[in-house]
Amino acid sequence: MKSDGLLIVISGPSGVGKGTVCAKLLAAETKLKLSVSDTTRKPREGEKNGINYSFITKEQFLANMKNDAYLEWAEVYGNFYGTPKAAVEDNITIGRDTLLEIDPQGALLVKEQYPDGIFIFILPPNFETLEHRLRGRNTDTEETIRKRLHLFQEEIKQIPMYDYIVVNDDIEDTVKKVKAILDAEHLRFEHTLVYADLLAEVDKL
Amino acid sequence: MKSDGLLIVISGPSGVGKGTVCAKLLAAETKLKLSVSDTTRKPREGEKNGINYSFITKEQFLANMKNDAYLEWAEVYGNFYGTPKAAVEDNITIGRDTLLEIDPQGALLVKEQYPDGIFIFILPPNFETLEHRLRGRNTDTEETIRKRLHLFQEEIKQIPMYDYIVVNDDIEDTVKKVKAILDAEHLRFEHTLVYADLLAEVDKL
Repeated sequence: MKSDGLLIVISGPSGVGKGTVCAKLLAAETKLKLSVSDTTRKPREGEKNGINYSFITKEQFLANMKNDAYLEWAEVYGNFYGTPKAAVEDNITIGRDTLLEIDPQGALLVKEQYPDGIFIFILPPNFETLEHRLRGRNTDTEETIRKRLHLFQEEIKQIPMYDYIVVNDDIEDTVKKVKAILDAEHLRFEHTLVYADLLAEVDKL
Repeated sequence: MKSDGLLIVISGPSGVGKGTVCAKLLAAETKLKLSVSDTTRKPREGEKNGINYSFITKEQFLANMKNDAYLEWAEVYGNFYGTPKAAVEDNITIGRDTLLEIDPQGALLVKEQYPDGIFIFILPPNFETLEHRLRGRNTDTEETIRKRLHLFQEEIKQIPMYDYIVVNDDIEDTVKKVKAILDAEHLRFEHTLVYADLLAEVDKL
């Protein structure tokens, strides 16, 4: 008998550092598997198919959508992004913990389908820090930064649906906290087979 | 504004090593406070009043019982043991995490009064190990050991009411796991004031 893997959803506003948290977590927790998203956008330099994303055509993506193959999907600036349902399900069924790094809108859709997932919201220490980080990335226009900050104020309202809140002040400390959450969740009564094993042992006495 | 402290209940069968787990946890987590029980038995060598137990007279104990001053109490071989309600409540109210080391029967009574407490059941790796440990203590007669092992088979039925199960195979590993549970619980949405603080910040924007 094997326990199901845990579905761990890491979300938070744009610029909070979700990506770095997940990368460090995956490096430290070898048993954790990242769910690779499908996208229709072109690979950026250094990105590898099947590692960063599965790069597929718009036709493939639309066919997948039609077949209800995505846990959640979004269109951003004309490109599609989606989390393949089957990959997540297969992983969990074979007992592997599965990590989703996802925006709060996507997380909400995943929550509807996996209410027992472990939902972690990464927060900036404060608004100023988030604004500073968004500007520091040098990837967004002033208008986009304004939009992202405004979106964060909306996203905040969804936080009560999350199981855990982690403030990302120091990245190493944040990763340590998320690891503690994973360790603790594995010890939860409903996530362990220890009790079932014990009952079987008692039956034999 | 200050968050309430957490009530952490560590339970498990006699001989599983609850005491050692709690002692090591208290040494490592300076903010954690052990709830000191009242007892009517005489202090053993090395035991200090107010540290190991509050040693009180039978008359005092019975008066406290009458005043509903105990979260739970038990009579063991003619001696009374009780967990003072006020001390636990005061601790929690001032935001201090409070540790109870308690037998499964007592834990059940605490659960009724503090359903939001964090209940951790410490298990032996298997029955044989528990039996071996009970014999190794050299404090119990054969009859008492039999009774304790039989009691454990009854206590097992209550395990589903616990939040976490930790198998005490290696003591350092067990303490590490319980610490992860405490760290994770502090990050739970319902145990943090981060969200309230954030909403206050948004209001000011």
